[in-house]
Amino acid sequence: MEIYLDNASTTKTDPIVLEAMLSFFDKDYGNTSSPHKMGERANEAIERARKIIADSIQASPEEIVFTSGGTESNNFAIKGVAFNKKRGQIITTKIEHKSVINTCKWLEEQDFEIIYLDVDEKGFVKGLEQAINNDTILVSVIHGHNETGTIQDLKSIKQICEKNNVLFHTDACQSYTKTDLSTDDADLISLNAHKIHGPKGVGALYVRKEVNLDVFMHGGGHEKGMRSGTINVPGIVGFAKAVEIADLGKMSFLNEKLKNGLNKIERTKIISYGLPHIVSAVFEGIEGEAVVSSLDLENIYAATGSACSSKNLQANQTLLAIGLNHQQANGMVRFSLSRFTTEQEIDKVLEVLPGIVQKLRKISPF
Amino acid sequence: MEIYLDNASTTKTDPIVLEAMLSFFDKDYGNTSSPHKMGERANEAIERARKIIADSIQASPEEIVFTSGGTESNNFAIKGVAFNKKRGQIITTKIEHKSVINTCKWLEEQDFEIIYLDVDEKGFVKGLEQAINNDTILVSVIHGHNETGTIQDLKSIKQICEKNNVLFHTDACQSYTKTDLSTDDADLISLNAHKIHGPKGVGALYVRKEVNLDVFMHGGGHEKGMRSGTINVPGIVGFAKAVEIADLGKMSFLNEKLKNGLNKIERTKIISYGLPHIVSAVFEGIEGEAVVSSLDLENIYAATGSACSSKNLQANQTLLAIGLNHQQANGMVRFSLSRFTTEQEIDKVLEVLPGIVQKLRKISPF
Repeated sequence: MEIYLDNASTTKTDPIVLEAMLSFFDKDYGNTSSPHKMGERANEAIERARKIIADSIQASPEEIVFTSGGTESNNFAIKGVAFNKKRGQIITTKIEHKSVINTCKWLEEQDFEIIYLDVDEKGFVKGLEQAINNDTILVSVIHGHNETGTIQDLKSIKQICEKNNVLFHTDACQSYTKTDLSTDDADLISLNAHKIHGPKGVGALYVRKEVNLDVFMHGGGHEKGMRSGTINVPGIVGFAKAVEIADLGKMSFLNEKLKNGLNKIERTKIISYGLPHIVSAVFEGIEGEAVVSSLDLENIYAATGSACSSKNLQANQTLLAIGLNHQQANGMVRFSLSRFTTEQEIDKVLEVLPGIVQKLRKISPF
Repeated sequence: MEIYLDNASTTKTDPIVLEAMLSFFDKDYGNTSSPHKMGERANEAIERARKIIADSIQASPEEIVFTSGGTESNNFAIKGVAFNKKRGQIITTKIEHKSVINTCKWLEEQDFEIIYLDVDEKGFVKGLEQAINNDTILVSVIHGHNETGTIQDLKSIKQICEKNNVLFHTDACQSYTKTDLSTDDADLISLNAHKIHGPKGVGALYVRKEVNLDVFMHGGGHEKGMRSGTINVPGIVGFAKAVEIADLGKMSFLNEKLKNGLNKIERTKIISYGLPHIVSAVFEGIEGEAVVSSLDLENIYAATGSACSSKNLQANQTLLAIGLNHQQANGMVRFSLSRFTTEQEIDKVLEVLPGIVQKLRKISPF
């Protein structure tokens, strides 16, 4: 048996989602741009999907642009505003996903000014009002955080942005379908499929009607000229099906059970500030890598550091930002649940984990 | 019965390809970046796929970067060189795919100089040697053309580029697996899956070891930092399977049969200059749109203009470039075959087409 608790990194494609996709691979496989019935059927399928995704955040279908995933959505939103405005200041935070951080770093090389805001010990952004000025063209703040679970108060951030006539983007890839989210929350919203039991390689960007973005992916003029490239019909159909059947179900109950169990392991700090599927824990005195490796031997799959870059062993910037020291940051293990997670799986984790922590602490140099 | 002759636009995912992908949706669904067995299995799968694709063009696996498709590969190659070099001249042609043309147009706005070379009446590029100068940073020429079928002599273009110390990129999305292609042909090669019976939403860029590209998609450092974004494991596995089983089989025989039949329709010019799957025809005096619509009524699916933008009714730039006038260019219909095309399907097309052309000519104002 394998126990997969790395759902913040990526999820199993729900068999119902896969089933919905299948006929678009080898039956209705047309190009949405083609002027014949095969093309029309593909086109109708993606417009149905667009409506489902738009409805889920109370957007209009024409405000949804399909992309290849969350990373592209973040690149598109931020570079799209930057190249449209040509110069100015962008405000983001120290706890963003690397697709936001590294896009901003690259824009610094293109002579944009970037401000990286601090956060408090629960991961909430600080100092936006003071940082914003007449040069600010964009604020980008992650919605639900992939490691701390912190859910930002987007409406109050948006209010500050509106007052200052500044666009607001949020990366909602980790929070989408797991907490409230709508077009009241931001002008630009990044979404993706593979974190919600949809397929990898597909995402979307919500772009409020009034917002002008420079094109990121140039080509044949798909998506009303906003994002070119042959439309990934099966992927988009699967994305919409995943949204349709999203259901947190028992996740919050199991989340409580896991936290209670972790709390019984001494010198353990639990970091789980909002999103129902994310329970991170710092086991003092040992390396998160060692815990994850030991769990792996038991076929239990958890993560250290950030989902998308846990092979890069540098101190986790988010954990430093919420006030942990380097040693604590390296001690973090993230368990992330899904609706497929069972109570027996959580029981098994709580059965083996105390022994693993005890054994590692014995041999740890700290 | 439906007869699909729009395979230059997109193809049916081969059931063998789909079969190879399936387990990566809901069994081995891990993130390639994750430090556990589920991640490792995903990673092993994409490295096997990378080797298959590298071998197919005699590249090293580390020279293959996975992307979301041909459009992204073209954006990445051209913008990657442009931003790396910071300024200079780029030489391309008047017959490129829009993902090359529109990327170049955008770079013009960013103060790069772009030269669009003419072609001869068979679609072969002219005047490269005269256009290249000390400011040239990149030459980008399509390999096999999506409408004319013309297969450029890449080796002689590359020789000119090498002599002048200029990088050479080719968009091989339409030619890949259908004619010879290797790393001897270019420094940067765009490839994709959905035109060769692989899935939509996945492609690759071959980047010769010595070539430095600026990153296009910023994020978590996937693909050795060259292209971030959670790796589309099922898509990449499917791409490699499509390459493995690529086989032209009877396509060239059917191509001859189709051309012979079209030749019997009077005042018809056939444009089919190399790629085995592309047979375009200009029926003088009538609109290609009208022919395609009439064929659609018979459940026969063909295309006008370019695969990826046939809904935009502007005169086809490639056809003007090879010397057709506006009326002829609007009269073009493209039939594109695949290994799934049957002789009966070609017979059926040749049975109904003469009547359609005759009828349309009767009511045409030309």
